[in-house]
Parts: sequence; C-alpha cells; structure tokens
Amino acid sequence: MIVILKKNPDEKQLNNLMAWLENLNLSIHPTEGQMHTILGLVGDTSAVDIDLLRALDIVEDVKRVQEPYKSANRKFHEEDTVIPVGNTQIGGDVFSVIAGPCSIESEEQVCQIAKAVKASGATMLRGGAFKPRTSPYAFQGLRGHGLELLLEAKRQTGLPVVTEIMDLSQLKLFDKVDVIQVGARNMQNFELLKELGHTGKPILIKRGLANTLQELLMSAEYVMAGGNENVILCERGIRTFETATRNTLDLSAVPMLKKMTHLPIIIDPSHATGISWMVKPMAMAAAACGADGLMIEVHNDPKRALCDGAQSLTPEAFDDVMQAVNAILPHAYKMPKGM
Amino acid sequence: MIVILKKNPDEKQLNNLMAWLENLNLSIHPTEGQMHTILGLVGDTSAVDIDLLRALDIVEDVKRVQEPYKSANRKFHEEDTVIPVGNTQIGGDVFSVIAGPCSIESEEQVCQIAKAVKASGATMLRGGAFKPRTSPYAFQGLRGHGLELLLEAKRQTGLPVVTEIMDLSQLKLFDKVDVIQVGARNMQNFELLKELGHTGKPILIKRGLANTLQELLMSAEYVMAGGNENVILCERGIRTFETATRNTLDLSAVPMLKKMTHLPIIIDPSHATGISWMVKPMAMAAAACGADGLMIEVHNDPKRALCDGAQSLTPEAFDDVMQAVNAILPHAYKMPKGM
Amino acid sequence: MIVILKKNPDEKQLNNLMAWLENLNLSIHPTEGQMHTILGLVGDTSAVDIDLLRALDIVEDVKRVQEPYKSANRKFHEEDTVIPVGNTQIGGDVFSVIAGPCSIESEEQVCQIAKAVKASGATMLRGGAFKPRTSPYAFQGLRGHGLELLLEAKRQTGLPVVTEIMDLSQLKLFDKVDVIQVGARNMQNFELLKELGHTGKPILIKRGLANTLQELLMSAEYVMAGGNENVILCERGIRTFETATRNTLDLSAVPMLKKMTHLPIIIDPSHATGISWMVKPMAMAAAACGADGLMIEVHNDPKRALCDGAQSLTPEAFDDVMQAVNAILPHAYKMPKGM
Amino acid sequence: MIVILKKNPDEKQLNNLMAWLENLNLSIHPTEGQMHTILGLVGDTSAVDIDLLRALDIVEDVKRVQEPYKSANRKFHEEDTVIPVGNTQIGGDVFSVIAGPCSIESEEQVCQIAKAVKASGATMLRGGAFKPRTSPYAFQGLRGHGLELLLEAKRQTGLPVVTEIMDLSQLKLFDKVDVIQVGARNMQNFELLKELGHTGKPILIKRGLANTLQELLMSAEYVMAGGNENVILCERGIRTFETATRNTLDLSAVPMLKKMTHLPIIIDPSHATGISWMVKPMAMAAAACGADGLMIEVHNDPKRALCDGAQSLTPEAFDDVMQAVNAILPHAYKMPKGM
Repeated sequence: MIVILKKNPDEKQLNNLMAWLENLNLSIHPTEGQMHTILGLVGDTSAVDIDLLRALDIVEDVKRVQEPYKSANRKFHEEDTVIPVGNTQIGGDVFSVIAGPCSIESEEQVCQIAKAVKASGATMLRGGAFKPRTSPYAFQGLRGHGLELLLEAKRQTGLPVVTEIMDLSQLKLFDKVDVIQVGARNMQNFELLKELGHTGKPILIKRGLANTLQELLMSAEYVMAGGNENVILCERGIRTFETATRNTLDLSAVPMLKKMTHLPIIIDPSHATGISWMVKPMAMAAAACGADGLMIEVHNDPKRALCDGAQSLTPEAFDDVMQAVNAILPHAYKMPKGM
Repeated sequence: MIVILKKNPDEKQLNNLMAWLENLNLSIHPTEGQMHTILGLVGDTSAVDIDLLRALDIVEDVKRVQEPYKSANRKFHEEDTVIPVGNTQIGGDVFSVIAGPCSIESEEQVCQIAKAVKASGATMLRGGAFKPRTSPYAFQGLRGHGLELLLEAKRQTGLPVVTEIMDLSQLKLFDKVDVIQVGARNMQNFELLKELGHTGKPILIKRGLANTLQELLMSAEYVMAGGNENVILCERGIRTFETATRNTLDLSAVPMLKKMTHLPIIIDPSHATGISWMVKPMAMAAAACGADGLMIEVHNDPKRALCDGAQSLTPEAFDDVMQAVNAILPHAYKMPKGM
Repeated sequence: MIVILKKNPDEKQLNNLMAWLENLNLSIHPTEGQMHTILGLVGDTSAVDIDLLRALDIVEDVKRVQEPYKSANRKFHEEDTVIPVGNTQIGGDVFSVIAGPCSIESEEQVCQIAKAVKASGATMLRGGAFKPRTSPYAFQGLRGHGLELLLEAKRQTGLPVVTEIMDLSQLKLFDKVDVIQVGARNMQNFELLKELGHTGKPILIKRGLANTLQELLMSAEYVMAGGNENVILCERGIRTFETATRNTLDLSAVPMLKKMTHLPIIIDPSHATGISWMVKPMAMAAAACGADGLMIEVHNDPKRALCDGAQSLTPEAFDDVMQAVNAILPHAYKMPKGM
Repeated sequence: MIVILKKNPDEKQLNNLMAWLENLNLSIHPTEGQMHTILGLVGDTSAVDIDLLRALDIVEDVKRVQEPYKSANRKFHEEDTVIPVGNTQIGGDVFSVIAGPCSIESEEQVCQIAKAVKASGATMLRGGAFKPRTSPYAFQGLRGHGLELLLEAKRQTGLPVVTEIMDLSQLKLFDKVDVIQVGARNMQNFELLKELGHTGKPILIKRGLANTLQELLMSAEYVMAGGNENVILCERGIRTFETATRNTLDLSAVPMLKKMTHLPIIIDPSHATGISWMVKPMAMAAAACGADGLMIEVHNDPKRALCDGAQSLTPEAFDDVMQAVNAILPHAYKMPKGM
C-alpha cells in the first residue's frame, strides 16, 4: 500500500500516522518526491481501510498494491478450483451447462424441460422458485412449492439443481438443492453471504449490474471467509448506456477473472442480452474465450410462449446452441499456467 | 402500452395475441404503418410484463405509455406526501437534516455527536449499527448493541433516529427506531421491502448505484403495495466512469422525482462524493434545487479521525454546512403545482 | 412514430400540431387511452426531430417505431455488404485480419512487422501515422512521413493499408491509403464524416467510447448519405465503471449490428482490453460470435518493448492468436437470413 | 510515479528498466514488499507514458502520483484565472450567463432573443451556426451566414458572442467571435485543440459525454500548451444508464474542478437535462455550488416552438431563471484558498 502525503505535512499528524501504521505491524518506507512524500507500507495491508487513510488531513491519496481478497486470489492458490456437484462438477475439465426455465410453473413443465435439456447435454438443471421481480404486481414464483417441483425433476432426471435464494429465512428449504444461487441484486447482501459461508453447499454468485470484478471477488470472499470454498462466479451483463441489448455482456471478465482467481466462471447469455436469438452467438463466444460453463433459460411450450421471457429458448433452439458450443469447445482458449 | 408488430405477422399468432390481450381487459387499437402495424392498448397495463410481450415471434418491440408504478405516482396523488417522524416530519415545509456518525462506536461518541448536530439544527440523528462493508475483514458494526446506543442518544436529545436494516432477521430490534433505512445495495432486496410494507414505520430507501429513478419508485411501490405509504427516497450517487469522486451525485434526480412522485426526496452528499470537503457545496446545491432534506455524516473526535471515513465532517464543519444551507433555503426551487 | 399527448391537451395547440404533422406528409391515427391520447404517425418519419416534438407543451413523450438510419438499415438492404479492398475484401466470406503497429516508427519497423503479420495470415496492414493522444506532451506520430513509410510497407508486401485520419486537412495525403479509419474520438466529427462521404474510399468507423450502436449507424449514415456506401464498423470497447480492463469490449454488438445493418463488423480487442495477453481470448470470442474480422496491434522488437503499448503482441504471439482464431472460424456463428 | 514490479523480476529486464528510467532523469527509490517490489520515481514524470511502462513483462502495475496536466493544474497556479471577454469577463467576481438560441435561424430571431436575454441580465450571447446533429438528415445550421447574423446581434446589443466551431477549416470565419466553443463530441479532436492553442481567443471546451474530469483538463492542456491560456471549462451532462433525463448533470464537477484547476467552470443545464422545465432548478443548484456561470438555451417564438428544442426556454421563463439564480448567488459556495 502506498500513502501519498500532501506537501509539507503537519509534523505532529505525521508522527501520529506513523505510530498508527506501525501499530498495524506495517513497516514504512518513505520516498521524498518534488511535490509529495510517498510512504510505501510493507506487511499485511488487507485489513487496512483505504478510505480511512484518505480521510487524514495530511494524506493526498492512497493506492493499493495488493488485492484486498485473499481466499479467492489466484496468487495464493494457483490451481483451478473444481467443485463436485452430484454426478458432475463445475470447473476443471467439465464444461457445465446449467439450463432450465426462468420460473418453475408446474411439475409437467419443469420435468419436461429437464428431460429435454438433459438429452441435449445439459449437466445441471436450473429453475426459479423465488423470483426477484422489479414490480410488486408481477408473478413472484411458486416459492416453496416451486422448490419441490424442481426436486421432483431432479429425481426424474438425476440432474443436480441450481436455484436462487432471496432471503436467509428461505435457507431451511434449500437442503436438497445442489447449488444455491445468489442473484445479481443480492451480490452485496452481506448478511446472506456470511450465512451461506457456514453451509457446505456450492454457492453461485451472480455479478451485480454495476459491480466491478474486484467487488465480485470480495463477495466470494465473504462466503469463503466463513469456511465455504465452493464458490462459482457468474457474469450476466452489466449496466451501461447501451439500450439495444438489456445489459452489456462483459466477456473480457472471463480471462480477467481467470487471472485474478482460481474459482470457476459461468456465463449467463440469457439475462445479459434479454433476447433469445442472441443466446447462441454469445454462448459460442463465451465458450471460445474460456468460460467454465453456461447458464441458459429454456422454456418448453411454444403455445404458451406468452408466459415465458423474451430471453428463453425452446428445447429445439437449446439443442442447436449445444451443438454449436460443442463444436467450439475443443478449440477454446486455455489460460496458460502462471500468468 | 404500444405493441409494434413485425412486418407480415403470422395470422394465427396474431389472433392468439389479440385474444390474450382482450383477456387482460385491454382494448386494442391498431394502426397500419408502412413498415409496421402498431397496436395501441387501452386499459390497466400495469400488470402486463413488457418482457413477455417482447418474447413473441410476431412482436418487434413494446413501449410503455403509462408508468408501471401506481401508489408512488404523482399523477394519482397530486399533493406532496408529508411523513410525521417523532417531533418533526419529512417532506412539506420542513427541510430535514439527518446527521450522525457512519458507525456507532460508543455511547459517548454517538451522544456527543447527537448533541452537537442538534445544536447546529439537525432534525434527526443517523448512525450505523449494522454496517454493509465490501470486505468481510472490515468492521461490521456494533449491531444490536449499536442500536441500543443510538436509542440512548435519542433519549438524551429527543432526536428521532434513522438507521439501516440489512436483513429481515434484524427487524425485531428496530421497534423503537423512527425511520428504517434500506441501503443502496438492498434497494432491490424485494423480500425485505415486502416485509417492511407490513410495518407502519417510515422507510427511507436509498437509490442503488446502478438503478434508474423508475426502479427506485418500483422499490417504493413494493413497500406501498403492502400498505405502508411512509416512504422516503434518497439519492446517494450513482456509478459512472468518473473516478475523481467516489460516485456521481445525480441532483437532477431531485426535480425529476418531484415530477414523477409525491414522496419526499433526501440527498446524501457524504456517500455520493466520498470526500468531506465536497459535502458543503453539494449540500448547498441539493437545497437549491428543491430537495426535502439532507443526510450527512458527522464524526466527533478529530484525534481519532483515522477511524472515521474520508467523507465525515467534524461538528464544526457540519455547523458551517448548516449555516450555508440555511442561507440558501429561503431561495430554493419550489416545483409549481400541476407540472 | 408515436406521440403521447398529455391529459386534456389545449385544443388550439393540438390543432397546430396536427397541421404541422400533416404538412410533413404524415398521416395521423389517434387512440384515446384512459390517461393519454396517443397519435400514431404513418409515413416517412426519418426526418422528424424527436426532440422537437417532445418540446411541445401538450406532448408527454414521443417514441420512435422506425429506425432513424436508412442506408445502413438491414431492413432496406437484406444482403451483407462486401467491400473490395486491394487484393482482398471486407465482409462476406473473408475473415479480415488487420494487424500492425500502434505507431509507425521507422521503415524497418513497419516493413518488418508487415512481413511478419502477412506470413501469419493477416489480410491487411494497420499503422498509425497521425496519433490521437490524450496528452499534448506524448508522441503524436510521424504524420505525413509515417504515411509514406506505411505505403512503402504496402509496396513491399502487397498488403492493403488502414490508417487513421484526424482532420480534414490531412485528407489529401490519404490518396494511396486503402481504408481510412475514423477513430473513436472522431466518431461524431460530422464535418469529417460528411467529407469522407464524398470520397469513394472504404471508411472504417470506430465506435465512440460512450456511443450506442444506433449512433454508430447514424455516423455510418453520414458517410453513406454522401454517396459512399463502403463503410466498415469497428467495436473497440465502451466506457463503463469497470477498471480491471481499459474498456469493456461489447461483443454482443456483433450479432446485434448484424441484425441492424448489412455493413461488415470488425472487432479491435487490443484497444478494448488494453492488455496484450487478453487479445487472444477476446479475438477467439469475436470470431466465434460472427465478427467479419479483427484489428490487432503488433510490435516487433521485444528489446524496445518500452516504446510499445501494453496492448501490443509480438509477431510470435500474433501468430499464436491467428492459429487459435483459425481453429474457431469453421465453427463460427452465422446469422440466419431474414432475422 | 510508482512502478509495482512482479514477484522475482528477470534481472536483465530490471536493469534495462532502471537504465531507461534514469535516462529520463528520474531518480528511483525501491521498497521491497512481501509480494512485490515497488519503485518510487522522483522527477518530472509528466512525459512518461503510463501505458508503456505497464507493457513491460516485469511490471505488475504503475500508479501516477502527480497529475499529468501542468498548465491547467491549480497546484502550479493558485489564483483563479479570469478571462476578459469584450465588456465583461469569465471567472473571478462575475457570474457569466451565456444565453441564446440553439440554432440561429434569422436575423430577427437572434436579435430579438439577444435583446431579451440582455434585458434579463445575460452577459453573453450564444447561438449555433454550425450544428453537430446525430442525423445527416437533420438541419445542420446556417453555417457562415449564421455567424453573420450572430455578429449582427452582437452589434445591436453589445453582447460578446460564443459559438461552436466544428472543423479547423471554419476557423477563418471566427475572427470576430469572442469565445470559440469546442463541443462535447470534439473534446478530444486534438488537431482542432492544438490549432486553437495558436489563436489568442478564449476557448470554451465542453466535457465529452464519457470523459473524465482529468481528460477534460488534458484537452485544456492541449490548448494551453500552444500558448493560449484562455480556456473555459463547461460541464453539460455525462452519459449514464439513467434514461429519465437525457444525460446526468455532474454538479460535483464544479467543486472538484475548482480544486484541480484555476480555470473557470460553466454549467449547461439545457443540454444536460434536455428538458426545459429542469433548467431552472439545475441552474440554481449550479449557482449554489460555486459555478462561474451558466449556458442556457432560449428561443423566442412560442408559436414556432415546434422548431426549437425540448430544452429551450422562452424569454419569460429565462427571466424567471435569472431572478431565481440571482437570489442564490449572494449565498453561493466559495472554495476556500489553498484547498
């Protein structure tokens, strides 16, 4: 960590600062510049709050050299994390495809979709029981009953299931769920993350619409700090000024996260674009640049398409996506070791 | 609501669509254009999910004419909402100043600050007990004990108190809190909002870092739909590409929200800028353009400034801000009726 | 175009509006809603300034149904545009790879790089002579002399050349340049675009850092409206809050632009990420989702790497990228006809 | 400037780097950390290209301590710059109000507006002759003839005039123009900025829609590096995800720029919001937080309002804004010396 002091700092305040820093077991290496004196801090700075230092009258600016995340940091854990889930895994040599309906509507619907996506090569089933909706007047999901239907589809197909938790009070219902999803709007629901850190379950965290990759890793760190190292990261589009797509899918997050962390990275092209025909090209691009998997919305009943989102694929369209992605996979990017 | 159809839509699908819309008690007014047919929908469209319509093969685009929020909409509730809080109010003729420490640290600290800000003219006391921190390794607040200290400061000064809830499980502790704050990161924690809609307490909702004004009103709508109309909106900076300030304070939100809604609007210049000396000019600007109040961080002990945020003011600096704001207030913007 | 009127519009103003619209040869189809009256306008609305309509007292909002671009619009020109350039082409069945140094430094440098990238399969040579630099104190390019060196490299290799124009006064020097590039910062330099519309040369327009895809097409429209239909679009990253990469590469622009327009689309992963090792995965992703080509920075002298940008590849690294991209290309996304 | 080296850097490359830095007359102060070695560079680093350093294999990151702008930097020029313009000035004790039509349409129009805004207290007249329009099919301004009409209005009223240049080739027509405006889309048209640095005229530079404050100052630096120190900065809204207003007016730019630079700062609420009724509250807020002036669009003929922008005020509405702003001004924020 580097502390840049203002010109001619008050000596008493400077001594206070030096004493405080030494108390934190940091050693201090000053450099006198023309305009500024710079203090290089050596030691474990991960607990130093950068904003607090900036508050000092004598401090011009503070810059971090080390990343504030530890457990998630590739520098301290070179090997890719592989997370076993039921009969499959996330990360490593498996390309995970998590497919299923946006909302669980009925046993018939979710089981039919589950069978279809399994036949096309999906490795896991997704389905929403608790639905975060912008409007209080919109359908909020089948909730507890939805979870039961999802587990029934798991029984019928053997596919492990991923579904979203919206509040801690729902956690007791997630016992047989294989992967618990934390939605983009809850990415910084720190109480929820902390509690999920005390479960042993794989946790899939979606990047918030306006969150940096570092913040995503800090949210992973909340779960990992509680002792649960089974964290999966998911990029699902960020908010920009562009309006032609719902969000802007940030695929450069894939190689950048691979460098920053050892955790697996999943791409959700359905939510990112909000447009069903764009799922295929963006899924192909995600596979090409080295993602560990995809999360894709699939609906089953074209006649009832009115009740499915603009971003969902039919099982036939999903099968087409799978074939296209499978053709890309043997040629996909692999990050070299030790980058 | 306007539905723009693709060129030469499939007739069967069009009939299905028409039947579905009529089922929703909407009447349909088509206009034939050169490239497109447009359907004007008349009736209550607030429950129609715009994404679902867009999903249809025959639909090119859908555009909303009516706002999706009702209870919060100025069009249906012309008069400003005034929310009584203890011996004061938010909205109407009172300019609310909610001041206090970022984190509650001790009884002495919070009571001393409370007395100081009251003397300078603050109408309410703020203080954080449950603290949302990006890093799991940072101080997370005194939690339940912090709330007790805040209530002690309320007893000593008579100032009503505002403090943040982070999870539903904490709600039982907020019984004597005057205003419950929902933080920016929880703006779309819909389960929390729903439950707060069943309390009678004033709820102050902070705008999320990447949320539109319409989404802020939809979050207000969640609380109001539960029967609690005491909602206060707070702008605290949005995330942009600019890095000189922590966030970008969107002051045009003040008049724009005044037009969209009857709910009171508070500005938080401390979090928006993240820089203590900028609080004064931005507080003055907020007062000038018609905000209903301010939320300002104040710390008390310059010698311990290391443990306060870069954005906090000393009581003396806060007093200076109050004088400057009070000089602006008689000349502040008032939105004309019926705009 | 749809005009949404305010409740109870002033009759005289409404009559004025109706007369004005009819003067523009638009026919008007009103729909009476509960809160609003809607006017559907049928006819050629591309010349109607949407802001002007919104200015009217009686107008609540205006929404476009037709796109404001015509020449660039896929709806009026279904076939992909293919632009012949020297012995190659951009668009159609050829995947263009435009490679070369950020700045032209010497004959030896540019010719050596040109030979190297040609050997690896580049179809065109790029090189900067006029350099837009944020700082007036940074190297501004060899300018006219740089162009001469670039043309010498063209003579030696036969590769057509692409280079950036920064001001109209430079145009006379671009006679033998094959493709003229308009940089991101000049994307809305309308005087420049207009004049380039009167040349017959292929014009490659880079998307501005904060410009929408529709605005990019409007800039293409400026060139095309002057009679020059040889426009190539280039996505090179947009500005967002993310700081881990220089910009955010918006790959969803590839399929979305393919739907909006018939013009070819090139991706520049070097500028988008600003990080050399990220060029490979992002180039692969761009190829996978259907881009018509790539623009990549290559430098030649590892010992002088200090004078090359953080985003440049060595010829060896470029060769590796080419092999990886070539492996992807046979499996790349092709937009179905008539989408 | 601080260079953060990777762990265990290659010794030969490190020696090359050290030699190169010393060649630039920088002295080097290393600090050995646990994970990284840090080099503190002392000397004039304004000409060092930070991207070039980052390109080195052995470099992890580079952080600037000193700002890259010099002439515009408040640290080297403590006093506010005051720019005399005709019978008035920009900066210092004068609050400048630059008002007039978006587009100059006729002598009658511009002269009538000029007289009206002068009567209400405007200090300068604005009017567009060369108009940057997104669409090639929209009105592009009266161009040279428009300038003549603007100068006629200057003769009739004595008001100094501000108008936009779009291309260097127009410069010869700007001889009698008092202040030359560089529009937001040309903020990084470096050839134009360089040439304007060789005129003696005051140059008003509008911040680009996606440009940081530091980049705005670098553009000012381009003009100042040419010897022209008469630069005025103008904030006119930045592009964010919010769609309720056209852009997001960044008023925190006012105090932040005051700290960074000695140049005067003008706010344009008309373009920022794009909504005429919002001009008043945002003008008041701009005055309150210490702006040096305003730029406001005014049209004159309510009957022809169809041809004026949604953001223009009538002369009566402008007069109302002036009164409101004048009431704020005596209480406005003044940045303390030496901040």
